[in-house]
Amino acid sequence: MTLAASVLKGNRLALARLLTLVENNTDEGRSALNELFPHTGKAHLIGITGAPGTGKSSLVNQLALHLRNNPDTPDGNSNQPDEDPWVAIVAVDPSSPFTGGAILGDRVRMRDLSGDPGIFIRSMASRGSLGGLASTTSGLVQAMDAAGFNVIMIETVGAGQAEVDIARLAHTTLVVEAPGLGDDIQAIKAGILEIADVLVINKADRPGVDATERALNSMLQLAHPVPRIFQHHGSFEYVGWEADAELNELPWTPPIHKTVAIEGQGIEELVQAIRAHYQYLHETGSWKERECARLQAELDGLLQETLVSRWRSRVPETEYRRVLAEIVARDISPWQAVNILLDGGAA
Amino acid sequence: MTLAASVLKGNRLALARLLTLVENNTDEGRSALNELFPHTGKAHLIGITGAPGTGKSSLVNQLALHLRNNPDTPDGNSNQPDEDPWVAIVAVDPSSPFTGGAILGDRVRMRDLSGDPGIFIRSMASRGSLGGLASTTSGLVQAMDAAGFNVIMIETVGAGQAEVDIARLAHTTLVVEAPGLGDDIQAIKAGILEIADVLVINKADRPGVDATERALNSMLQLAHPVPRIFQHHGSFEYVGWEADAELNELPWTPPIHKTVAIEGQGIEELVQAIRAHYQYLHETGSWKERECARLQAELDGLLQETLVSRWRSRVPETEYRRVLAEIVARDISPWQAVNILLDGGAA
Repeated sequence: MTLAASVLKGNRLALARLLTLVENNTDEGRSALNELFPHTGKAHLIGITGAPGTGKSSLVNQLALHLRNNPDTPDGNSNQPDEDPWVAIVAVDPSSPFTGGAILGDRVRMRDLSGDPGIFIRSMASRGSLGGLASTTSGLVQAMDAAGFNVIMIETVGAGQAEVDIARLAHTTLVVEAPGLGDDIQAIKAGILEIADVLVINKADRPGVDATERALNSMLQLAHPVPRIFQHHGSFEYVGWEADAELNELPWTPPIHKTVAIEGQGIEELVQAIRAHYQYLHETGSWKERECARLQAELDGLLQETLVSRWRSRVPETEYRRVLAEIVARDISPWQAVNILLDGGAA
Repeated sequence: MTLAASVLKGNRLALARLLTLVENNTDEGRSALNELFPHTGKAHLIGITGAPGTGKSSLVNQLALHLRNNPDTPDGNSNQPDEDPWVAIVAVDPSSPFTGGAILGDRVRMRDLSGDPGIFIRSMASRGSLGGLASTTSGLVQAMDAAGFNVIMIETVGAGQAEVDIARLAHTTLVVEAPGLGDDIQAIKAGILEIADVLVINKADRPGVDATERALNSMLQLAHPVPRIFQHHGSFEYVGWEADAELNELPWTPPIHKTVAIEGQGIEELVQAIRAHYQYLHETGSWKERECARLQAELDGLLQETLVSRWRSRVPETEYRRVLAEIVARDISPWQAVNILLDGGAA
């Protein structure tokens, strides 16, 4: 039996082995993913991101526990599986070369989640992953999806471009905040809000929660402007949206949920919001749109990696070093070096 | 006179215009940078990064004011200019598509720094910059360097991979922390510490400053292990460093400085630490090494951008769309799509 076939049969050891092959960017892992890809596309991918200090790991733990213990009812969301969903967690920590953070997080998780065969946890702490971080994460998620996990949570630490790229892998993105993280966090929020489907104020028993909620609400109004039809009330001419002219349905407005994850407060309501977003995606056709955008982002990433690695294998290291030395000596500029390396100096 | 020549003559309007051309990734900007590149390499590039909420902008303001008002003495650091240094600030906020954060920051800056012709501030808030973020930032820094700025501070918000990439542009990198930003911030620190030359605990008048300092100290011991010669005391056989076997000098150990930027506390000592690192780089030959690493990172980024954009211009949009649709239909995997697009499906 091939590795891919074992993964499809639900063999957890085979899955773990495949994930390692994918992380190491091996041909064997790649060919197994090719074999598994037709079996993907069933899982609900949930991204969880936000600034450090917001308690994301605890929140992810609680969500996993709740999803396992409270399967969706058949009359609730018909697109969700009726049985206990299998839940997988991919914890991505691009800034840690030590795996220190991820291991610490896993220890806490293990205490809460161990012994439940319906939960699978994988950490990716390696910044220097051999493929790109987003494409490696995407490979891990595909393997888990094919292995039959119904919900896959992708947790990223931080709030930079890498995290935004990883969030693009998800169908539903949770952005987690916490009260009292300072003033210039506003700068982060502006960008990160753009990708939020559900906003969570965790540690909501702390002082400053009302101020955080007010700030998020006003940022939301900036990020999700009221359609012009409501602005120009009186005239009902539909003139489209500022953000997405092709969208025909009323857009999703990210709800704000307050939680105290370590005490389990607000988790039930948050799970309902996640399920509501899942339903929204299916009812409006946005699911297909997101699938398309997700897979395009992945294709573009792989094309970029491949173009660069192929070029590198063609150019002698001595030639590359010689040109680099000329830049360091300020004899040529980096752009001139690019022309020399790609065209022999023609352009 | 060419635009580049005007920039070299110290014309600030020409510089501002060039920076816009560079941000827009135009041929005119690129060719001006080619012309200016031989005049670069003089400025001390200082990166300032760290998690949100740490008060980086205030710190950068105070550093700029201090550097302007307290030029290095001739008998101090002989490599630094004796006269009032010109200080430029590039504020990079990759997560904000709205420029909201950057504009807010600039307003505060303008109040403190306006009217001093020796200070120049530029914000880059556009996430969707046409070139890559790191290479665009590098272009801005080159233009400022050629224009005669002696110190260029590159401020990034956040602590993800994009910020680490930008920090690689600098000779001296400051990582800013603040007390009480939560527990899982440790995960961030592990990775970000790797790039720190100087650690700053800002907002040091807040509770928890001792705990933050202890945490940083223990992270430092992980990140900068004692050389083995000291571990195996008794045997004086030199067996090299864990981290960098080529380094012959004692390595730089990042000092920890406590500041209260909005009150100007600790700024003087921090400036001394920055100058000490500048001197260390020159005395040990590390300056040259960093220049080489910096310029190699830039060259690699430009090569990647160019390879991708050239490939895109060769492949018809319809072909790309057709292959993407096959992925979405799960008929082919993303890797198989890469093979089809690059080799016509051969491999």
